[in-house]
Amino acid sequence: MSETPQLENIPEDTGKGLSNGMDTKQKEELELAAVYVSDAQHNRNIFFETQPQAVRLYLLYNHWLLVVLLYFFIIVNLLLAVVEQPALLPVPTWASMLVELVCLSVFSGRLVHYAKVIPRDKFWKDPKNLCILVILLLTLVDMIIYGALKATDIYSVRWSRVFRPLLLVNFTEGRQLRRAFRSIRNALPQILSVFLLFIFSILIFSLMALKLFGKRGLKTNSGKPYFTNFLEIVFDLYVLVTTANSPDIMMPAYNASSFFAVFFVIFILINTYIFMSVFLAVVYNNYKKYLKEEVRQLVRTKRHKMVRAFAILQERREGLEEPVVSHASWNQLVRLVQADLSHAHRELLWSVADQHNQGYIGKLAFVQLADLLNIQVIAVKSRPHPLQRWSPSLYLSTPSRWLCRAVQHRVFVMVYDVIILVNAVFIGLDEEDPLIRNSEWFFLALYLLEILLKLYAMEPRAFYSRHNFWNWFDTIIIVSALVATIINTAMTSVGGYSSRQILDIVFTLRVLRLIRVVDSIKRFRVIINTLIKIGPTMLTFAQLIIVVYYIFAMVGMELFQGRIQFFDSDSPGKHSCGNPALQDSSFAQLNYCKNNFNNVVSSFILLVELTVVNQWHVLSSGFTAVTHPSARLFFILFHIIVVIIIINIFVAFVLEAFFVEYTLEKSLLHTSLEKRIQELGVAQDDLGPPNLVDAMETTDNNLRTGEPQTRLMFKISSTRYRTVDSLLQRMFEADLDPEDFGGEDDPEESSNFNFSNPVFSSI
Amino acid sequence: MSETPQLENIPEDTGKGLSNGMDTKQKEELELAAVYVSDAQHNRNIFFETQPQAVRLYLLYNHWLLVVLLYFFIIVNLLLAVVEQPALLPVPTWASMLVELVCLSVFSGRLVHYAKVIPRDKFWKDPKNLCILVILLLTLVDMIIYGALKATDIYSVRWSRVFRPLLLVNFTEGRQLRRAFRSIRNALPQILSVFLLFIFSILIFSLMALKLFGKRGLKTNSGKPYFTNFLEIVFDLYVLVTTANSPDIMMPAYNASSFFAVFFVIFILINTYIFMSVFLAVVYNNYKKYLKEEVRQLVRTKRHKMVRAFAILQERREGLEEPVVSHASWNQLVRLVQADLSHAHRELLWSVADQHNQGYIGKLAFVQLADLLNIQVIAVKSRPHPLQRWSPSLYLSTPSRWLCRAVQHRVFVMVYDVIILVNAVFIGLDEEDPLIRNSEWFFLALYLLEILLKLYAMEPRAFYSRHNFWNWFDTIIIVSALVATIINTAMTSVGGYSSRQILDIVFTLRVLRLIRVVDSIKRFRVIINTLIKIGPTMLTFAQLIIVVYYIFAMVGMELFQGRIQFFDSDSPGKHSCGNPALQDSSFAQLNYCKNNFNNVVSSFILLVELTVVNQWHVLSSGFTAVTHPSARLFFILFHIIVVIIIINIFVAFVLEAFFVEYTLEKSLLHTSLEKRIQELGVAQDDLGPPNLVDAMETTDNNLRTGEPQTRLMFKISSTRYRTVDSLLQRMFEADLDPEDFGGEDDPEESSNFNFSNPVFSSI
Repeated sequence: MSETPQLENIPEDTGKGLSNGMDTKQKEELELAAVYVSDAQHNRNIFFETQPQAVRLYLLYNHWLLVVLLYFFIIVNLLLAVVEQPALLPVPTWASMLVELVCLSVFSGRLVHYAKVIPRDKFWKDPKNLCILVILLLTLVDMIIYGALKATDIYSVRWSRVFRPLLLVNFTEGRQLRRAFRSIRNALPQILSVFLLFIFSILIFSLMALKLFGKRGLKTNSGKPYFTNFLEIVFDLYVLVTTANSPDIMMPAYNASSFFAVFFVIFILINTYIFMSVFLAVVYNNYKKYLKEEVRQLVRTKRHKMVRAFAILQERREGLEEPVVSHASWNQLVRLVQADLSHAHRELLWSVADQHNQGYIGKLAFVQLADLLNIQVIAVKSRPHPLQRWSPSLYLSTPSRWLCRAVQHRVFVMVYDVIILVNAVFIGLDEEDPLIRNSEWFFLALYLLEILLKLYAMEPRAFYSRHNFWNWFDTIIIVSALVATIINTAMTSVGGYSSRQILDIVFTLRVLRLIRVVDSIKRFRVIINTLIKIGPTMLTFAQLIIVVYYIFAMVGMELFQGRIQFFDSDSPGKHSCGNPALQDSSFAQLNYCKNNFNNVVSSFILLVELTVVNQWHVLSSGFTAVTHPSARLFFILFHIIVVIIIINIFVAFVLEAFFVEYTLEKSLLHTSLEKRIQELGVAQDDLGPPNLVDAMETTDNNLRTGEPQTRLMFKISSTRYRTVDSLLQRMFEADLDPEDFGGEDDPEESSNFNFSNPVFSSI
Repeated sequence: MSETPQLENIPEDTGKGLSNGMDTKQKEELELAAVYVSDAQHNRNIFFETQPQAVRLYLLYNHWLLVVLLYFFIIVNLLLAVVEQPALLPVPTWASMLVELVCLSVFSGRLVHYAKVIPRDKFWKDPKNLCILVILLLTLVDMIIYGALKATDIYSVRWSRVFRPLLLVNFTEGRQLRRAFRSIRNALPQILSVFLLFIFSILIFSLMALKLFGKRGLKTNSGKPYFTNFLEIVFDLYVLVTTANSPDIMMPAYNASSFFAVFFVIFILINTYIFMSVFLAVVYNNYKKYLKEEVRQLVRTKRHKMVRAFAILQERREGLEEPVVSHASWNQLVRLVQADLSHAHRELLWSVADQHNQGYIGKLAFVQLADLLNIQVIAVKSRPHPLQRWSPSLYLSTPSRWLCRAVQHRVFVMVYDVIILVNAVFIGLDEEDPLIRNSEWFFLALYLLEILLKLYAMEPRAFYSRHNFWNWFDTIIIVSALVATIINTAMTSVGGYSSRQILDIVFTLRVLRLIRVVDSIKRFRVIINTLIKIGPTMLTFAQLIIVVYYIFAMVGMELFQGRIQFFDSDSPGKHSCGNPALQDSSFAQLNYCKNNFNNVVSSFILLVELTVVNQWHVLSSGFTAVTHPSARLFFILFHIIVVIIIINIFVAFVLEAFFVEYTLEKSLLHTSLEKRIQELGVAQDDLGPPNLVDAMETTDNNLRTGEPQTRLMFKISSTRYRTVDSLLQRMFEADLDPEDFGGEDDPEESSNFNFSNPVFSSI
C-alpha cells in the first residue's frame, strides 16, 4: 500500500475519511486489516474467507446485534424449562414447542451464516459445528416423537433438553466457557489418579469398619443396625469425607468405646484433610498448566493476526530494511477498528507505539496495538461546573467556595459515616415505634442532601462518570428508597394497608445503603477492588455452573418429578411430603419437602443446597427412599463433578487471581502508556470523592488564568480488565516471549493456529 | 591454620586422628569449626561463647540425649492433664504435683545450662528465655496457691496449665513451631482486614434478614420464632457460612416463599464461597511471604556460620589470592561433624566440592558443605546373598536362579495383587463360616511365602535397608497378624472365648495388608511418595494443632467440666445428658452426651469434631444451654483460629509442597552430586522390588569375574528431606542468591543474625 498523504489533511471526526480519495481496493484492504485487528483485540479465532464479500458477511456475523440476538434465543431456549412439564408456569405444549422451533431456526440461521463465512472444508472439520448440527437434529427428532406421543396420550420424556446448555458451549461466542471445559477435560487424567486412590482409601476404611463394628450389635441414633452392610458403609464414609454426617456417624462407636474415635480421626485426617487438599492441589496445578498453554496459544494467534494486518498495511521506506506502517494508515485503521475513540486518545496510543516520534512504526510496535486497545483509558473532560457557567459570581462567591471545600473535606465523609452507623441502629430497632418509623424520612433527607451537596461541589458529568461505581450506587439506592417509601406511605395512608412486597423492597434498600461505609475505609476498598477486578472472570464460572446445573436439573426432573410434594397448608400428606415412603424419615422431619425436582426453580435451589454439601446425605436419602437406592449415584456424581472439580477450580482461580494482584507489577505496555500520559501532562490521578479537591484545584487554575475551557485528562483504569482474556493473559504474561509471532507466513502452521482450539463436544 | 600433612597418612576409621600430632589450640579451633558447621547443617541459631570450655558445654547442650530428655519431660508435663482434675485416670494431687515439680526442675536446669552457654547479656535480651522463666514462675505460684487452697478444701483452678504448651514453642528446639507461629502472627494484620469485611458483610445480611423475616411470624422446625433476635441471627448466619446449618436455616423462609431463597443463595455465594476463598488466598499469600523471608534469613545465617568455620580453617596458598581450605582440614572437619560418614561417602562429597581436583576449595565451595551434608545419600553395599556364601553351588544352580528370576518377574507381583484382591473379598465375607475363617491361614501362609521368596532372591540387608518402606511394612504387618491370629486361635481353643481386643487387632492387620496394592500401581506410588515427602513437615502442623488444642482443652475443661454427663447404662439422666437444661434439646436427642469437656481425651475428640465443623452449632448450643449464651464466644473463637487460620495454612502448605514437587527441578547441588556419583560409576539406580533384577545382575557380574567382594554403591534419596528446613529451603531456592553470605564480618550485623528470630510469647 502506497502512502496516502492526502489523508493527513482530513479534518478529524468527520468519519467520512475512508471514502475520500481512496480506491475500492485500498478500502477493502484496509477493511480486511481492521477485521484482523478487531479479531486480535477480541481474541476471535475464526478462519474467515478474505474476499471482500465474505469479509462483509463476516463483519455482519460479528455484529453485536446478531450476537445479542443469539444469546437472547439461547436464554429463551434454556428458559423453556420453566414452562415445560414439569412446569412452574404451565403453558400449552404447542406454545412452548413453537417457541423452541423459533429458537432452533435462529440457531440454524446462525450456523448457516457461519458456514458462509468460513471455507466449506473448514466448516465440516470443526467438531463445534457438527456438535451444534447434531444437537439441532436430535432436538427436532425428540420434538416430533414427543408431539406424536403426546397427541396419543402416551407418557414420554423430552430427553433432548439435556443438550440445550451445550449450545452455550459450542457456539463460537462461548470461547471462555469452552476453554474452561477443555482445561477441565485435560486435567481429568491426573485428577482421576488421585480420585482412584481416594476411593481405594475409602474402600479400605469401609472394610475395616465392617470388621470392627459390624458384629458388635451397635445401633444408630434412629435404631438401625450400625455399620453392617458394606455398601452402606462406603456411602456413609463417603458422606463423612464431605463432613456432612460428622459427628453423628461416629457417635455409636464412640459411645461404645473411646478408642474407636481413633478410627474416625484418622479417617477424617487422611480423607477429608489430606486427600481434599491434594485434590485442590492437583486440580489447581493441572488447570493452571493447561490454561497457561491455552493462553500461550491465544497470544500467538493474536500476534499472528496482527502480523497479517501489518502485512496488508506495510510500506517500504527509504533507508529502512524492515517494512513499516505510517501514522496515516495506522490512524485510518484505528478509526475503523474503534470508531468511538477520540482523536486525543488515538494520538496518545500512537505516541506510545511510535516512541521515537519517527512517523512510522515497525512490526513489533504494530503488533502491540491489539493489547493497547484493550487497556482501558478513561478520558475525563475537566470542565467548569454548570452552575459556574450559569452564574459565576454566585458559584465562586466565598460562601459557595467554602461549601465546596467543606463537602470535599475528610470530616464530611466521617460525619456521614457516623450518620450511617446511627441509621443502622435505627433500622435494627422496632419499626412499630412511630419515632423510629418517622426517623426514616429524616435519614432519607440527609442522604439526599449529601448527594445534592456533592453534585454542587463536583461537575455532574464527572460525578456520574462510568467508573464512579459508588456514586451511581448511592444515587440509585437513595432515589429508589425514596420512591418506594413514598409509595408505601401513600398506600398505608390511603388504603390503610401496606404491601409486604413493597415493604420488603424498602427494607432491603434501607440496609443496602449501609454498604457505602465500605468505600470510606481504605483497607476494605483494596479487597473490594480486587474482587471487582476478577468479577467478570467469575462469570465464566457462573456459566460453567449453569451448564452443569441445567443438565442435572433436567435429568433430576425426569427421575424424581412429583415423587416428593410440598403442601403449604395443613394437608394430611404434609408430614410425609405426600409420599408414604417418607413417613418418619429425617427428610420429612426436617421439613425438607420443598426441596424437590418438581420444577426447574426448585431443582436449581436444591442443586445449590447440594453444592453447599451439608445435609446432602439427608436430601439424597429422601430421593432414594421414594425411588431406588441407586438414585444415590445421581447425588454422588453431582458431588464429584460440582464440589470436587468445579468448586476447586473456582477456588484455584480466585487464589491465582489474588496472587496476580499481590505480586504482579503492571504490564510493560501499561507502564509505557502510563509514562506517556504523564509525559504529555494529561494525567488524571484518581477519580471519585477523595480527589474532589484536585478537580477543584484544576478548575481554580483554569479560572485564575481566565481559561474556562474543557480539557481532556486521561487515566488508566487499572481496576478492570476489558475482557477475561486480558486478565488471563496478564496472569501468564511472565512466560510469554514478546518476539514470538506464531508461525508467521507458513500457511500450514497458520491454519493450525486458526483451528488449534479443540472443541468440547461431550461431558 | 597450617597444613597438617601427617594427618593424610592416618588410616581411615581409626577415629583417633584428632589427638595425634595436633596441639590443643588447633584441636580446639577445629572443634569450634565443627560446631559451626554442625549448627549450619541443623540450622541451629544460638550465639554461644567461643571459649573452649563454653564450646564443650554447648556441645553437651546439643547432645541428643539431653534434647530427647527435654522433649520427654515436656510431653510428661503435657500428659499431666490426663491425671489432674478433671481426670481420666485420677491420682492423688500430691503425686501429679510431684511429677510437675520434677518437670519444672528439668526445665529450669535446661534454662540454666543455656544461660551458661551464651553470653549473659544475650540471655536476658532474648524474650524466649524470659518467657520460659515467667511460665516456670507462674506455674510455681499456681501450684502453691492450688496446694494451699486444696488443703483447706476451697475450690480452685489450675490456671497455669494453659501455659504448658507454650514451653514447646519457646524452648530453642521448637524452631519450626516458632517459625510457624511467627509467620501466622505476621500475616494477622492482612487477615484481619478480610475478617473485618467479612464480619461487616454478615452484619449487613443479618440486619436485612431481621427486617425481611422478623415480622412474618415464621417458626423454625422446632417451633421457635424465626429470625427475630439480631444477635441470634448473626450467630445463625455465621454458622451458615460454615455451611453447618444449611439448608435448615433457610427452610422456614423458603417454605414461606421461593423468592427468599435468593437471599440465602447470595449470602452463601458471597460469604461461603468468595470470602472463604479470599481467606485462603490471603492466608496463603501472607504465610508464604513471611515464610520466604524467614527462610532467606535462615539461609543467610547458615552461610554466615559456614563463613566463620571457613575463617578458622582457611590457609593461604602460593599463587592464590583468596584463602582456601585443604582437603586434609576438610576431612578432619567432616569426620568431626558427622562421625558415621563412611570414607567413600566423604570422598564423594569432597569430589563434588573440589570439582577441578585441586586438593583445596574456596569459600563458595566450602559454604555448600552444610547443604551437601543434608542431602541424603544412601550407601548400599552390594554384596552376595548369604546363602550364596554358605553354598554357592546350590544357590547358583539353575533351578535356584530360575526361582530368583521368577520372584523378580512382573507376573509374580501381579499374582500377588490378585491374591490380595481375593483376600479382600474373603475378609468382607462372613467370619462365621468355617471355610472363610480357615482361609485366613491359607492367606497368611501365602504372604509369608512371598516374604521368604523375596528374601531368598534378594540380599536380606538390602531388602531391609532403611528406605524400603514397603518391605518393612509387609513384614511387620504379616508377622504381627500371624502372632495375633495364633494367640486368638489358642485362646478360642483353650478358653473357648475370643478376646474382642485381639480380634480387633487381627481384623485391622488383615485389612492393612491390602494397602500393599498401592505400591504396585505406579500412578498411585507417585502421589504416595509426594505425601511421604511432605510428611515430616506436616508434623510441624501437628504440633501447632496440639498447642492450640491443648490451650482450648484446658480452658474448656475449666469452663464446662461436669456440666454434661455421659451415662453408659440406662440411667434416668441419659436422655438429658444428666442436665435438665438439655431435656429435649437436639444435643441430647442426637446422643452427643459423650462430647464433653470432662477429661482431656474427650476434650480433644470434641475439639476434632469442632474442627470438622459440621454440627458445631449443635455442640456449642449444648454447652451454651448448660452455662451461658456467651459460651458461644469460646466456640466461635475456636472456629476462627483453627478452621479459618490454621487449616487454611495447612491447605496452603500442602498446595505449595505439591507445586514444588510438580514444577521444581532438582537443586543445583543435588544435580552436581548426582553427576559426580554417575561419573565415579558408583550409582545405584533404584532400590526395592522393581530393581531386584539390577541387583541380581550386579551379583552375577561379580561372580562371573570371580570377585564376590562387597562394593559400595550410592544413591541420592530424593524421596525425603532430612529436615523440614531443607524442604522449605528448596521451596524458595529460586529466590536465594548463592553469593549472599550474610553480613560476613560485621559483628553488629552478625549479632543481628543470631538474634533475628523474634519470639512467640503470647497467642
